[in-house]
Amino acid sequence: MYDLNISPDAVAEVAEEFIRGQVERLERDGVIVGVSGGIDSAVAVTLAVRAVGPDRVLGLLLPERDSSPHSSEDGRLLMEQLGAPYEETDITSTLTELGIYRKAPIRLLVNRRIKAEAVRATLKLYARRLGENPFMTGLRGTRGRPGQGVIDAGHAYARAKHRIRMVTLYFRAELDNRLVLGTANRTETLTGSMVKWGDSVADAQPLLHLLKTQVRQLARFLGVPSSIIEKPPTADLMPGVDDEMAFGMSYEILDRVLFGLEQGDSLDDIATLAGTSAKTIENVMEMQRRSQHMRELPPAPHFPDVRPV
Amino acid sequence: MYDLNISPDAVAEVAEEFIRGQVERLERDGVIVGVSGGIDSAVAVTLAVRAVGPDRVLGLLLPERDSSPHSSEDGRLLMEQLGAPYEETDITSTLTELGIYRKAPIRLLVNRRIKAEAVRATLKLYARRLGENPFMTGLRGTRGRPGQGVIDAGHAYARAKHRIRMVTLYFRAELDNRLVLGTANRTETLTGSMVKWGDSVADAQPLLHLLKTQVRQLARFLGVPSSIIEKPPTADLMPGVDDEMAFGMSYEILDRVLFGLEQGDSLDDIATLAGTSAKTIENVMEMQRRSQHMRELPPAPHFPDVRPV
Repeated sequence: MYDLNISPDAVAEVAEEFIRGQVERLERDGVIVGVSGGIDSAVAVTLAVRAVGPDRVLGLLLPERDSSPHSSEDGRLLMEQLGAPYEETDITSTLTELGIYRKAPIRLLVNRRIKAEAVRATLKLYARRLGENPFMTGLRGTRGRPGQGVIDAGHAYARAKHRIRMVTLYFRAELDNRLVLGTANRTETLTGSMVKWGDSVADAQPLLHLLKTQVRQLARFLGVPSSIIEKPPTADLMPGVDDEMAFGMSYEILDRVLFGLEQGDSLDDIATLAGTSAKTIENVMEMQRRSQHMRELPPAPHFPDVRPV
Repeated sequence: MYDLNISPDAVAEVAEEFIRGQVERLERDGVIVGVSGGIDSAVAVTLAVRAVGPDRVLGLLLPERDSSPHSSEDGRLLMEQLGAPYEETDITSTLTELGIYRKAPIRLLVNRRIKAEAVRATLKLYARRLGENPFMTGLRGTRGRPGQGVIDAGHAYARAKHRIRMVTLYFRAELDNRLVLGTANRTETLTGSMVKWGDSVADAQPLLHLLKTQVRQLARFLGVPSSIIEKPPTADLMPGVDDEMAFGMSYEILDRVLFGLEQGDSLDDIATLAGTSAKTIENVMEMQRRSQHMRELPPAPHFPDVRPV
């Protein structure tokens, strides 16, 4: 098996020095972090508190209509434990005005448990029709394939939430000259499960080079509440969907495959050392390829006799 | 004088080929452009129509409470002339829910002419107190300087508009699998007068390497309506402020200075060949330096024994 262990003490030290350096570089008076109740933002905000002190960190909880109530509870618990200030801004009304809920999948069901069942059943149906998991469909696009309108609307709906969170974070940050600290990790970045110009961007990304399972190691070292570490990771966009269901594999497998691919190992070696099938590895390679554009600044043409920027 | 002339026919051809290539690369069914009524978006949407035909282009007008009514008029005129479909989405209600108008400068005046006077007077006052133009204050930040709260709020207010436009464009684009075509030019990119993760981003940026005065040359070649070409360029965020007022210099001067700096010419040579003062050149250098972070993906720390993305 591949060994993905990190030295969490050394990693934490480098990340904290990095955060201090970025605050200085951009001459900011503090840091803001969007706190979702999940593990990535818990680690990011904890590192920020260690880096610049609790008084210079603001946690911003940004729930909306479809968020789990447990997410906000976990976020508040974390901020109380850190002794740092936090605010809660419900973004439902902003998203309503943007028009996204009119495009929400299964929008007429309000009971979370029943909705979760319906969402899972719908995703399974599309997955069977398209021969791939719903996350891959989002990356690949639906041009000329069954369910195009409905599936595109579902993805547009989910992505708008992440982007509105980014805008809300920046608006709050700029009111008192704070650095927006991002929470993107390497696993979501390499697979394209972050949202382009949503959670893919911030003023600084302390976790960008850590795989999800390495973020988990760091979370344990930092004393993040176990309720946050133990729950199944989810983007919390719709009841019934968590990350591993969307990917069609566990983070343990996914991280090992990403590690093997980056080492340039053969597919056979990766299959053995990650404990998975060639089909799964090909799926991950496809995710990497399809998400390349999300890891780049927008491309631009070069003109004859015009010097590029 | 520096010669900034381009060959607009060759530039247009390269830009159109680029747009077609990006639509294919991302497997999109069409293109969307945010049409502001200004010259950059007019050129971008015209190139898009030439590249993929009017039926595959959607212009999206995104006015809000403080936009000039002339902007939408010019935008509609342009789209009618191009024979391409367009939609108009007023983003005022979304911005209201985000809370930005509570932070708007001079927010109690509604008459546009009186408001314009008040805005100009206020900006002049701050410029005198801080010894620099208001745009530079936005770049430099106000840490520990007079007017911090008010000035920061004004910038937060303005930037949120650009970011909400980006989110609205992506939401509409993703509903029918369109490429988001950006309108950023080289002058705003090098000076930081675009908004980070607002109009700085898109799926593709056809004008990124063209200076503002070169975009104007291209606009004439493309037959953009003269009402759009001739009016003073403005971000149209507040009545009373146009770009040249914010920069404290004309685009002709600014573009020549940027050109000279990129050539690595001496300050004396630039002063002569751009027809301006050393002080102005130093101002432009400061804008370039302060906006560096807006032209980069978010930085991230490298950890011991962890391979970077």
